[in-house]
Amino acid sequence: MATRPMARTDFASPPHGEPPLETFRARLAATRARTLALAAPLGPEDMAAQAIEEASPTKWHLAHTSWFFENFVLTRFLPGYRLFDPAFAYCFNSYYEGAGSRQPRPQRGLLSQPTLERVMAYRRHVEAALERLFDLGLTPQSEATRLLELGLQHEQQHQELILSDILALFAANPLRPAYRAAPPRALCGPPEPLRWIGYAGGIVRIGSDADDHFAFDNETPRHDALIHPFEIADRPVTNAEWLEFIEDGGYGDPAFWLFDGWETIQREGWEAPAYWERRGDLWLAMTLEGLRPLEPAAPVVHVSFYEADAFARWAGARLPSEFEWETVAQQEPIAGNLLENDALRPLPPAENFQGHARQLFGDVWEWTGGAYLPYPGYRRPAGAIGEYNAKFMCDQHVLRGGGGATPQSHIRASYRNFLHARQRWLFAGLRLARDVGR
Amino acid sequence: MATRPMARTDFASPPHGEPPLETFRARLAATRARTLALAAPLGPEDMAAQAIEEASPTKWHLAHTSWFFENFVLTRFLPGYRLFDPAFAYCFNSYYEGAGSRQPRPQRGLLSQPTLERVMAYRRHVEAALERLFDLGLTPQSEATRLLELGLQHEQQHQELILSDILALFAANPLRPAYRAAPPRALCGPPEPLRWIGYAGGIVRIGSDADDHFAFDNETPRHDALIHPFEIADRPVTNAEWLEFIEDGGYGDPAFWLFDGWETIQREGWEAPAYWERRGDLWLAMTLEGLRPLEPAAPVVHVSFYEADAFARWAGARLPSEFEWETVAQQEPIAGNLLENDALRPLPPAENFQGHARQLFGDVWEWTGGAYLPYPGYRRPAGAIGEYNAKFMCDQHVLRGGGGATPQSHIRASYRNFLHARQRWLFAGLRLARDVGR
Amino acid sequence: MATRPMARTDFASPPHGEPPLETFRARLAATRARTLALAAPLGPEDMAAQAIEEASPTKWHLAHTSWFFENFVLTRFLPGYRLFDPAFAYCFNSYYEGAGSRQPRPQRGLLSQPTLERVMAYRRHVEAALERLFDLGLTPQSEATRLLELGLQHEQQHQELILSDILALFAANPLRPAYRAAPPRALCGPPEPLRWIGYAGGIVRIGSDADDHFAFDNETPRHDALIHPFEIADRPVTNAEWLEFIEDGGYGDPAFWLFDGWETIQREGWEAPAYWERRGDLWLAMTLEGLRPLEPAAPVVHVSFYEADAFARWAGARLPSEFEWETVAQQEPIAGNLLENDALRPLPPAENFQGHARQLFGDVWEWTGGAYLPYPGYRRPAGAIGEYNAKFMCDQHVLRGGGGATPQSHIRASYRNFLHARQRWLFAGLRLARDVGR
Amino acid sequence: MATRPMARTDFASPPHGEPPLETFRARLAATRARTLALAAPLGPEDMAAQAIEEASPTKWHLAHTSWFFENFVLTRFLPGYRLFDPAFAYCFNSYYEGAGSRQPRPQRGLLSQPTLERVMAYRRHVEAALERLFDLGLTPQSEATRLLELGLQHEQQHQELILSDILALFAANPLRPAYRAAPPRALCGPPEPLRWIGYAGGIVRIGSDADDHFAFDNETPRHDALIHPFEIADRPVTNAEWLEFIEDGGYGDPAFWLFDGWETIQREGWEAPAYWERRGDLWLAMTLEGLRPLEPAAPVVHVSFYEADAFARWAGARLPSEFEWETVAQQEPIAGNLLENDALRPLPPAENFQGHARQLFGDVWEWTGGAYLPYPGYRRPAGAIGEYNAKFMCDQHVLRGGGGATPQSHIRASYRNFLHARQRWLFAGLRLARDVGR
Repeated sequence: MATRPMARTDFASPPHGEPPLETFRARLAATRARTLALAAPLGPEDMAAQAIEEASPTKWHLAHTSWFFENFVLTRFLPGYRLFDPAFAYCFNSYYEGAGSRQPRPQRGLLSQPTLERVMAYRRHVEAALERLFDLGLTPQSEATRLLELGLQHEQQHQELILSDILALFAANPLRPAYRAAPPRALCGPPEPLRWIGYAGGIVRIGSDADDHFAFDNETPRHDALIHPFEIADRPVTNAEWLEFIEDGGYGDPAFWLFDGWETIQREGWEAPAYWERRGDLWLAMTLEGLRPLEPAAPVVHVSFYEADAFARWAGARLPSEFEWETVAQQEPIAGNLLENDALRPLPPAENFQGHARQLFGDVWEWTGGAYLPYPGYRRPAGAIGEYNAKFMCDQHVLRGGGGATPQSHIRASYRNFLHARQRWLFAGLRLARDVGR
Repeated sequence: MATRPMARTDFASPPHGEPPLETFRARLAATRARTLALAAPLGPEDMAAQAIEEASPTKWHLAHTSWFFENFVLTRFLPGYRLFDPAFAYCFNSYYEGAGSRQPRPQRGLLSQPTLERVMAYRRHVEAALERLFDLGLTPQSEATRLLELGLQHEQQHQELILSDILALFAANPLRPAYRAAPPRALCGPPEPLRWIGYAGGIVRIGSDADDHFAFDNETPRHDALIHPFEIADRPVTNAEWLEFIEDGGYGDPAFWLFDGWETIQREGWEAPAYWERRGDLWLAMTLEGLRPLEPAAPVVHVSFYEADAFARWAGARLPSEFEWETVAQQEPIAGNLLENDALRPLPPAENFQGHARQLFGDVWEWTGGAYLPYPGYRRPAGAIGEYNAKFMCDQHVLRGGGGATPQSHIRASYRNFLHARQRWLFAGLRLARDVGR
Repeated sequence: MATRPMARTDFASPPHGEPPLETFRARLAATRARTLALAAPLGPEDMAAQAIEEASPTKWHLAHTSWFFENFVLTRFLPGYRLFDPAFAYCFNSYYEGAGSRQPRPQRGLLSQPTLERVMAYRRHVEAALERLFDLGLTPQSEATRLLELGLQHEQQHQELILSDILALFAANPLRPAYRAAPPRALCGPPEPLRWIGYAGGIVRIGSDADDHFAFDNETPRHDALIHPFEIADRPVTNAEWLEFIEDGGYGDPAFWLFDGWETIQREGWEAPAYWERRGDLWLAMTLEGLRPLEPAAPVVHVSFYEADAFARWAGARLPSEFEWETVAQQEPIAGNLLENDALRPLPPAENFQGHARQLFGDVWEWTGGAYLPYPGYRRPAGAIGEYNAKFMCDQHVLRGGGGATPQSHIRASYRNFLHARQRWLFAGLRLARDVGR
Repeated sequence: MATRPMARTDFASPPHGEPPLETFRARLAATRARTLALAAPLGPEDMAAQAIEEASPTKWHLAHTSWFFENFVLTRFLPGYRLFDPAFAYCFNSYYEGAGSRQPRPQRGLLSQPTLERVMAYRRHVEAALERLFDLGLTPQSEATRLLELGLQHEQQHQELILSDILALFAANPLRPAYRAAPPRALCGPPEPLRWIGYAGGIVRIGSDADDHFAFDNETPRHDALIHPFEIADRPVTNAEWLEFIEDGGYGDPAFWLFDGWETIQREGWEAPAYWERRGDLWLAMTLEGLRPLEPAAPVVHVSFYEADAFARWAGARLPSEFEWETVAQQEPIAGNLLENDALRPLPPAENFQGHARQLFGDVWEWTGGAYLPYPGYRRPAGAIGEYNAKFMCDQHVLRGGGGATPQSHIRASYRNFLHARQRWLFAGLRLARDVGR
């Protein structure tokens, strides 16, 4: 199996219709630059610490995204490429067994060296080599080109992780530092009542055929799926509604919870979403702008799948399946409170929304009700790159739509993010759905 | 929610066409008697010990299956019923939050008291009360009748657990005791080559409508599902094939494994199915008849989902989805090496098999490739009984078809068993499937 | 080192002045018989379960004490001795690395087989062989004789463990079963005020010279030690005084506690001695006679070293050193509420006590304030028997005087029992001491 | 107890004979300056990371040593003192329950903020306040003066920790960075044969009376102790000897080990001292100057108590008691390879040594064979400062003599350092002793 050539459909091809390589070159440069811009507010110590096992230091993200290009592109496709430092493969390989041994995940925060300065030199070294590769000329549909596109998309994923991971770090710091300063804001009012949007069932097309845009292997192959009539909420669940759940004893009644969820909240002592803090009668939440009052009409964020599932049951509803969600989202424009909006937090819905279901893209990743599984006909790509998504298709849960830290060019209706049911440090919330006619 | 009356479809009704209550009364008596027969070879010490957290002592099974009738039927429907011992609810409640607090699961083996003798008296007390309930007369479609049927089915599940759990105990005992004696047997020959059976895709009916037979809530509602063309093996994977996997380095190459699976086999040091022991060049396996040579043509058993999944990938195949499996099984008779066959181990396929796919029922539970999730339109039943299946619908995996310790009247094509991916103590193996035309 | 002959002083010799072997033979038979008598109230299930890692099933004690004679005496000194079952060495070796591999300690409760019946046959097999050995004649000062004496003393230690371990099991059982029935008792009155007894310091003789009685290696060599003037309480701390400690917030103020102790009570949620249960305003304690009201004037029992140390600090005192304790005890008769008294619980002091310090022997083992260390000049005995005491001389704490389950012929002023600071399942309490003139 | 005034003997007084406060002022300034000098080679990321739970980031040491002065001196004795930042008490309190809640110890490495820059400002703020306190005038024997001296001594302890902790961090870094560069060195030759020095037993004076120098509370009160005739090695155990132990199978034979030690080396997979790495036939060791060949004649370092104890038993010897060690050391000059020597590693013995026992002070801390316990008549000081040493007097082990990172003015014959038996990250080795005439 290890010698099987990487199939054309392993990772979806770059945009169809001959995307000029110069355009890609510019996109890549802009992407790399944005990564640095996201790290800019942080000092070297902030960038070196690891808050929790599943988060990583900013510096590690900066290096790992460079190692990805070095390991999967430059060493294979740039003749005469010289490794910046042979020890970096050990330091900055994330989880690719096929790429050799690596720094244990919980100990990324021990890598005080290489220093930030040296990691920045690593980034420049890799970028200079990528320039040489571009200068040599790349065939649009070649494997090198597809891996470069993958590297760009990969870096966009780590942009979001830089923000979620630094928030986890600052939330664990007794000083509750802010990633960026912000003036106090007038609180928004209560949310508008939720409206239900009905959809007929039937055979739908799910996933990406990847002819005219990038898609990850886990979005393929495009295939038929059968859905049943359902209704979906026109917006995510809000902080105000979550407070109702808390005040109604939602965290104290096992009838709402999955077995694993009930065990988890008992063991961890959870009584609210991550980063919420009660100060007397007031609930605050730790954000990238420091400790802030809750915004009632903004989507709730930093809840686990367990909590999302329990909330939905309490509300007499359920989470949408990922196929339902995708069916709805296929009809909506890819727009919303995404990274480019620079709010860096979920916002109440915009006033002048024209579509049907609001806030599908941006604000918060939305937990879905199924499981993260391969699509019918899916094949694990060959080689180490095949570990990118496939080996995690077990006991994880799909999130859809992107959050406030997701780059706009990175998200689409078929995009599948995935997490363990217990995880809360990403920007994840939920949207309700329910059956029709049962 | 807690006061919503239990819906008619919560647990499927007893057999349609007025199953005479007397017939049910006889079935129940026979079921209860078989439970005792299964425990008969064991001494009081064997019945009191708990091998692992997920297994239970035989004595606990004997008591818990009685508590189930007492708690869910007798206290509600038999006027004047007197609890045998009020402390037993704490001792023998398994996981029903709605039924109060309980003995911690890992400490069931500490219940040296109540003694076996007293538990047997408990069984008789409950059975006498059930007789009184029958004498009072029961309406065929009443909730009491349905809960009685559920109690019977529940007891059948624990019959299988008595055997898997005692095997776990004896496998952990350095004396490797046998549950029952058996003479040496001539080893069977190698397995016949596997044949693939093709199935066209399309819309299929999945699940039970429960009009003419019992079904658990997790098999409902019956619904349409879409499957794609596939092929399925005509028999389960055998011990001989598993040995090839081992000898080909299957446990040593991360390319075959899910991330969680690779972590698990590293941490646990797994190099073969549970209960296999190498003695020089010979592989033995611990069975209910003690330590025995492997039977090459018999289905492999006591493998985790992780191992089943890795084996399938190594073999260039995959696990069937539960919908594929059910579609195939709907066309086959419910027959095979089940509990009544009294082999108590997987056997090579029978010579004179007339159907298409052999050994679908019996021999080994077969891991499927999806996830244990609610069916479209599923609703969690009200009250504590709603905890029976529903709260486990997260991060578990479905097994189909029953094993050599499953009662024949208990299994059917729509039956969904479920386990965590790491678990190996049940009688679980696998059957391969693969895509067509991709 | 392994071949060095066992030195004469390894384990102290049997009683001086030619203790007739017939006397020893009778003592051994009586000891073995008492072990069985202690187990007599228990059923086979009670005897098979293991409450906690440091406790063992009664059945295991019955077998291990027989294995001890078999492994250390019979296989070496009885020509033609036939092992009862070669697998038993694995099952019933406790911790002797030099005697081969063994059943993991936390899994002694999984040994449902061998059955109690077979263990009883094992005992008889060993006893018959010992008879043959006696018939062959034994030299009084021979190694065989000394190991027989060691085996007898070892069995006495396990007599006490049978009782402490079964109490741990029954205390973990929600039915709170009693080891033996007992009628209700009138509660004793409050304790008499504690009196202090003064002792001058100086050079004292500590340990055993073992010329005229048995002693363990850890009591040797007899040596000089220097003690400073001190006072010691005339009786142990009582339940009534412990209640004062609780009511004064003793478990809530870190100023009284060692660092490890404070961590332990926080982690474990300890707020009282082991087995205490509050029922409204009343404190009960689980005993070998079931759940009973506290006896105010009886010594407190089932406290850890951490708690004993914290209580002493709260009381403005300290624990006695083991040398202080031994100096006091050398002057007192070996008498008290020991196993032969058959109270099986600590009692208020006897009325008619003639000595100085009461209850030094019996009632409760008394934590001392030092550490369990080798005496000056101590040498680890050669061979596996050298593991008996020596390898535990690290981070454990000495207890003195014996408790209500200690055989009278087993205890003496120089006797050193030892436990980890956190352990509470033995019958351990404390006596206060304090400095003089500082 | 909490209101009892701090006794004069709680912490020993500053040097007798009226040490001019100006001298103290200069010592304090020099001490504070040296702390900074030790941190100077490190970048901000190196100073922020925490290698293991028992180590701390350099930055944390810099802040904690300032908080110590702020909390115990300035807030009590400097009128109008303004806290630098009220949140710092939470961040930089180490373990003083009496001083309030604190950052969990394993999470000191998450304190990316306050930044190094701000911590340096904190240091200056505290130092300026100390200057004002000096300007106000201090009575030599006052509590403020004594606490200042304690703060100075405390800071010296953290100087050593800065070095041991940064070595732990760099040893866990795959780049194996060096704290400071150093040229390759010619390897020293093999060690000279060990010589034994004999001492008669008798009553000795142990501990400090603290009349003319500082001493910690745990060195008091000065008291008589009884020791027995013994011999002690004239130098510590060397790397060459430790290699013999390894090659003789020392890590593989349980007969040499304490029970806890054997469990630990099995669980941790230890086969050599911490930081040793085998490269083919060559052993290297990670040092403050990076990965270096072992120096045969230099003292072995980074061994646990378990290993030291096992080595001594293998060698037919034992560890010295702390009283034996102190008796020997009382007769030797306080000189050696200490921090001021700036070798920052153990060295072979100097050629021109004039005393009896070489390398008692400096090179490596020496494990002793007893337990860390209070001296007779010891009283825990009142208030939070009483937590400094006293609450750790349980299940720890005393080390004597100081290592290569110990300031010379900080060490003395009566000095008691203490660690858990398993700990290896400090600069700890051992010296052999043995009984005479037994």
